Amino acid sequence: MKPVFDKNEYARRLTKVRKSMAAKGIEVLIEADPANMNYLTGYDGWSFYVPQIVVVPEAGEPVWIGRGVDLGGAKLTCWMSQANIVAYPEVTVQHPVMHPMDFVGQEFARRGWGRKRVGFPVDCYYFTPRASAALKAAMPNARAVDTDLLVNWARLVKSDAEIKLMRQAARVTEAIVDTYYKAMLPGRRQCDAAGDILRTAAAGTAKFGGDYAACMPFIPVGDQTQASHLTWTDQVIKSGQTSYIECSGVRYRYHSPLARSIWIGPKPPRNLLETNAVVLEGMEAALAQAKPGNTCGMMADAWQKVLDRAGVKKESRIGYATGIGYPPDWGEHTASLRAGDSTVLKPNMTFHMILGMWMDGWGFESSETFRIADRGVECLAKVPRGLKVIDGARGKSQSAGRAKAKAKAKAKAKTKPARKAPKRRRA
Amino acid sequence: MKPVFDKNEYARRLTKVRKSMAAKGIEVLIEADPANMNYLTGYDGWSFYVPQIVVVPEAGEPVWIGRGVDLGGAKLTCWMSQANIVAYPEVTVQHPVMHPMDFVGQEFARRGWGRKRVGFPVDCYYFTPRASAALKAAMPNARAVDTDLLVNWARLVKSDAEIKLMRQAARVTEAIVDTYYKAMLPGRRQCDAAGDILRTAAAGTAKFGGDYAACMPFIPVGDQTQASHLTWTDQVIKSGQTSYIECSGVRYRYHSPLARSIWIGPKPPRNLLETNAVVLEGMEAALAQAKPGNTCGMMADAWQKVLDRAGVKKESRIGYATGIGYPPDWGEHTASLRAGDSTVLKPNMTFHMILGMWMDGWGFESSETFRIADRGVECLAKVPRGLKVIDGARGKSQSAGRAKAKAKAKAKAKTKPARKAPKRRRA
Repeated sequence: MKPVFDKNEYARRLTKVRKSMAAKGIEVLIEADPANMNYLTGYDGWSFYVPQIVVVPEAGEPVWIGRGVDLGGAKLTCWMSQANIVAYPEVTVQHPVMHPMDFVGQEFARRGWGRKRVGFPVDCYYFTPRASAALKAAMPNARAVDTDLLVNWARLVKSDAEIKLMRQAARVTEAIVDTYYKAMLPGRRQCDAAGDILRTAAAGTAKFGGDYAACMPFIPVGDQTQASHLTWTDQVIKSGQTSYIECSGVRYRYHSPLARSIWIGPKPPRNLLETNAVVLEGMEAALAQAKPGNTCGMMADAWQKVLDRAGVKKESRIGYATGIGYPPDWGEHTASLRAGDSTVLKPNMTFHMILGMWMDGWGFESSETFRIADRGVECLAKVPRGLKVIDGARGKSQSAGRAKAKAKAKAKAKTKPARKAPKRRRA
Repeated sequence: MKPVFDKNEYARRLTKVRKSMAAKGIEVLIEADPANMNYLTGYDGWSFYVPQIVVVPEAGEPVWIGRGVDLGGAKLTCWMSQANIVAYPEVTVQHPVMHPMDFVGQEFARRGWGRKRVGFPVDCYYFTPRASAALKAAMPNARAVDTDLLVNWARLVKSDAEIKLMRQAARVTEAIVDTYYKAMLPGRRQCDAAGDILRTAAAGTAKFGGDYAACMPFIPVGDQTQASHLTWTDQVIKSGQTSYIECSGVRYRYHSPLARSIWIGPKPPRNLLETNAVVLEGMEAALAQAKPGNTCGMMADAWQKVLDRAGVKKESRIGYATGIGYPPDWGEHTASLRAGDSTVLKPNMTFHMILGMWMDGWGFESSETFRIADRGVECLAKVPRGLKVIDGARGKSQSAGRAKAKAKAKAKAKTKPARKAPKRRRA
């Protein structure tokens, strides 16, 4: 094993991060988000359930500080020299009195950082109030500054090397969705279909393997589709049920998420077809705004116009920046595709636009992960967009194109097809 | 879908938790650990990547407060009435200025909790310093008290209904390890074997399905085994490599983790067989202490005696309480099997004893998840313990029993076999 990128890539990232540090007056930066740690050092391991950090001083290599049993993993995956891979005492792990950050404070003092302006994470899953308090207590002369997602923002524009991995992740995503379409047959248990899907996600393609995603695939069926974050059960799939998948292929921790919806049975209900038609139209309208110089808010506004015309409501944002991810989230926690978000789109920014419509008793999702190109947009995974009809009773599935065409035909037949969609929505 | 347990089970849990609240002078308890939220309410969804809490007042039902798009999931999985399932405004999600906890403070005031002694989580992955500060600012007249893992400790002794689910999880664990033994053949990519393993984990058994585990399976091969928390790569498995798996079957979020090691090839190296022999002896010595009235520390001491005699060092604790789990951890963060831990063992406590030996360039793991029985101990998964030899070149695998017997025979042939194991260890 070795770090995924060459040293120049990591050097460019450090330069970008240090520029932001200087702007905020941060002399020493603490990172505890595993995605940010990976971005800065290459570190990759499922060890984020114990305290661990990467420290970025004003000059020199970053320093990885974690648990002793994870030194082996850090040495296999980080690009830094061994002197900058440091373990805290094992006995402090999940101890009622001692805390690893007691030791980390000493390490800071040893390296001359005890009186610096130190950037602390305040909204990261893996740096708790207890960790923060322990580290501050251990270096009383440091001045704590809020890092405010500094590294997350540095990740927003990807390098070409990162885009290459996201495209590979999209190949895995395509394979996962293909498996989903084949697996969701009436008479099978949801968990058996989930097993097929997870197998494809790990195995990847013949050219390269897959990796675990920051979220489990959401594969609700029937009334479970009214919820946005359910995984699967061991209930038997029946004809006459709707389902969706929200999943991501992953390559070296880079994600390319995608959602698609299906109808299991011979004839999709009208409200599902109508929602499908509105969502596809809204998707196209939003993507038409995805180009350098426009803002995230402009994409959301274009989507909203289509919804308003159809009389459909959805309160939640329609997307977020994506890239490196670790559980529990493949979002980058920075720019959102949401009204009022003024982030200006630039080439090689990557977003997951997720159009989830969670109704009373049923739901529908469709999404694209896209890259802002020099002009316009590149959707990473090539999967036809519309509702897929899986007529398991006849042992065959209808192409998404045909389902979409049918929906469009229906939409044409009536002037304003979506106005009749069910009233109650909380999407 | 419906809550997994009957209302009486949840009522008993609340009684237990309220007793601890009273002892700490907590009038209103905030829980943000998804395992604790599940324990109290049944809530199950992959929504812990946004702020969400369960609140336990002194009397009445707990209250679930989360994101609007997750209301559907909460209503499908929680046992409480709809009045106690509440959403904060969607626009606050991952917003640069607003925070969901601003709203939660108002909800607290509305319910008359604004001046109470409120228990705040301080060491939970999903309640960050920013969330804590926002909620405190939103109810300036409340008195904040550290909850100090109060609900985690309530989970330590399981009910019979919980044990039933953990035994079912162990059936899935057995199936996963069986798949691992069959999948790890020379010439295959690690990711393809990982795919087989994840399929079994989700599909479960013919009787009931599996669920996602709080940790991905760790399936390092070759020099990756020197690290404790690596998952898999797409490298090709070769004859002459060691590997281990650490995994867990899951049933309704209840885990039964297990680790086993293999040698891929005709003839395991001596240091691996010697480590295997020492670990098995230490495992038996520790399990002999696993009975009501003994302490966690006594189990660790029994293990340590075996290690000392063999001249082998391992600094990390050898286990922890386990049960309900969500990413990133299936440990309960309470009692540890570690020298000095004075937790007294009681019937229906459940632990994962994990003996991981991470050497310089290679590693070995073996573990058991066990229940303290009325007298002695019940290991939940029935998987032979010793090193498994997988001789893929000959297309067959040697039974663990035979490998263990061989190791024992070797051990007998020399007086102190393990003394010659490699010097450098950092386990």
